[in-house]
Amino acid sequence: MEYTGPTIFELGENQALKQALSVFKPVESTLVGSGDDAAVIALGDPRFVVTTDTLVQDHDFRLDFSTGYDLGFKAVASNIADVAAMGARPIALTVAMVVTRDTTQAWLEDFARGLQAGLDELAPTAEIVGGDLAAGKQIVIAVAAHGELLAEPVLRSGAKVGDQVAIGGTLGKAAAGLALLMHEDRTLAASYPELVDVQLRPTPPIELALSVSEHATAMMDVSDSLALDANRMAKASEVGIDLHSSKLFGYQAVLELAAQSINSRGSAQVSEVDWVLYGGEDHSFLTTFPQDFVLPRGFKAVGEVVAAKEPVVLLDGKPLEIKGWDSVSS
Amino acid sequence: MEYTGPTIFELGENQALKQALSVFKPVESTLVGSGDDAAVIALGDPRFVVTTDTLVQDHDFRLDFSTGYDLGFKAVASNIADVAAMGARPIALTVAMVVTRDTTQAWLEDFARGLQAGLDELAPTAEIVGGDLAAGKQIVIAVAAHGELLAEPVLRSGAKVGDQVAIGGTLGKAAAGLALLMHEDRTLAASYPELVDVQLRPTPPIELALSVSEHATAMMDVSDSLALDANRMAKASEVGIDLHSSKLFGYQAVLELAAQSINSRGSAQVSEVDWVLYGGEDHSFLTTFPQDFVLPRGFKAVGEVVAAKEPVVLLDGKPLEIKGWDSVSS
Repeated sequence: MEYTGPTIFELGENQALKQALSVFKPVESTLVGSGDDAAVIALGDPRFVVTTDTLVQDHDFRLDFSTGYDLGFKAVASNIADVAAMGARPIALTVAMVVTRDTTQAWLEDFARGLQAGLDELAPTAEIVGGDLAAGKQIVIAVAAHGELLAEPVLRSGAKVGDQVAIGGTLGKAAAGLALLMHEDRTLAASYPELVDVQLRPTPPIELALSVSEHATAMMDVSDSLALDANRMAKASEVGIDLHSSKLFGYQAVLELAAQSINSRGSAQVSEVDWVLYGGEDHSFLTTFPQDFVLPRGFKAVGEVVAAKEPVVLLDGKPLEIKGWDSVSS
Repeated sequence: MEYTGPTIFELGENQALKQALSVFKPVESTLVGSGDDAAVIALGDPRFVVTTDTLVQDHDFRLDFSTGYDLGFKAVASNIADVAAMGARPIALTVAMVVTRDTTQAWLEDFARGLQAGLDELAPTAEIVGGDLAAGKQIVIAVAAHGELLAEPVLRSGAKVGDQVAIGGTLGKAAAGLALLMHEDRTLAASYPELVDVQLRPTPPIELALSVSEHATAMMDVSDSLALDANRMAKASEVGIDLHSSKLFGYQAVLELAAQSINSRGSAQVSEVDWVLYGGEDHSFLTTFPQDFVLPRGFKAVGEVVAAKEPVVLLDGKPLEIKGWDSVSS
């Protein structure tokens, strides 16, 4: 997408923000929205959850792959997934932005529309309640997302030996989409729009996560990889997490053709198995439940919590290599 | 200050964060701190306030002027000033950071100590409850700060004709400090350590602001300049704000020697009057009170709220030029 017209720099911060902010829809829980020193948010309960996550140009996204709209949507999705993973309903987000000297106002407004679209689709109870706009060498998007608890928070540390391990959402699609986008054959991405869409605008099943929050013993969003995030849960809960490869076949199957298309085109070899185990950014929900809990549609059992001397992630009983996205070293 | 030892990049995100986080002290309102998908914060009242502000390397700070410690302190101070300006007690902050490939772990830990020192000195009821560390071309510090309301929020829009206008804190010192730091004669800054300190580590009087929050009709923190921020308040309240130059003399007097020192050294001429009216970053509290309210020690009357057809800032009854810091265009 080409963005034309004046830059944010030409308009100045106040004018630029005024136009971009007009996109946002108010929600009931916002007592005071943007425009004062701080926003004021009402809760149903005197506790709130807060999380923050950052997207950095050329590290976490590329402007030739993502439109402003895509990035707004993704910034919302990745942050509210963390809120929902605590068992909290998203209610308010702040967005601190660094833009560059040549970032256009048209890009900023497309970004704002993407933020609102992410809320409309994934968390209509939430509002963009504040922000900050600064200038720098590359675009940086730092979101803080807030939620209200529906019951007790669902921590990573609650997984119990014997629990079922389940996934709500997709696995590996975002990584496959990224591999398609990065391939030198630019026609490839167009052949697998669903995978590319998950990379550009992930859609974590927020309502699904909230619907099970009273039953889940542990929950977290898979942002860096199934292996890495399961390892974090295993450590926090001091358990082993044994994944069953037969239960992962379904996630791999939908990626197989894309992997074959990439592998048939040259030297860089990819694997749908790796995408499922080691790909990040789907923002699905890794969840543990008591053994007798009947999983609702949308959750899929992928393994079980086992006793272990040291926290460990296993695949069919054998230690799994732990790797994935490290936001500093990657 | 020289920082040596391994870079954050060499250590990796997890190890780097683990060491830096050990600096932070827990507070009672944090039910779940960093380490899960989100933090959980307890409030005395089912409302919270949230604000976000960003510091960008080479726009908002320079690494040859500020140590990591200074920047941590300033990031806390500037954000909790916004929280306190709402009449809310700071309780929780998240810090999203972009660091560069050559940022050392020693710098990060000094930054973390500065964050905690800012809380210790200005807001001991608050904790750093979460963060995010990413890699990029320049250091970016995006803080989101949260507070609990003590009573009704104090908005910018409540100033009433006849109110007294008062300042809690300093005016112009941060701008003077910046001018001293930027001067080619590097010995100058050392002659005025108090002014430089306000620029590097501002100390907004948080408790003072909270102590008057039930009496103030309007309050905001002066981050961009007295003129610019008074203009924002005038607009929000639909009033005129008439500043009295005789009441600003005291702020100018303490800056006069520094201005003379700079002006005696060459071509760039500065003015203590400009620093007071147009300098930002002191993070003092611009506050309006009913006429009969007796200002507590620490607040100083600087003018009055007057009727006006259009929102306006006056100096001795004449329109004041509105200028100050624009975080995008500056």
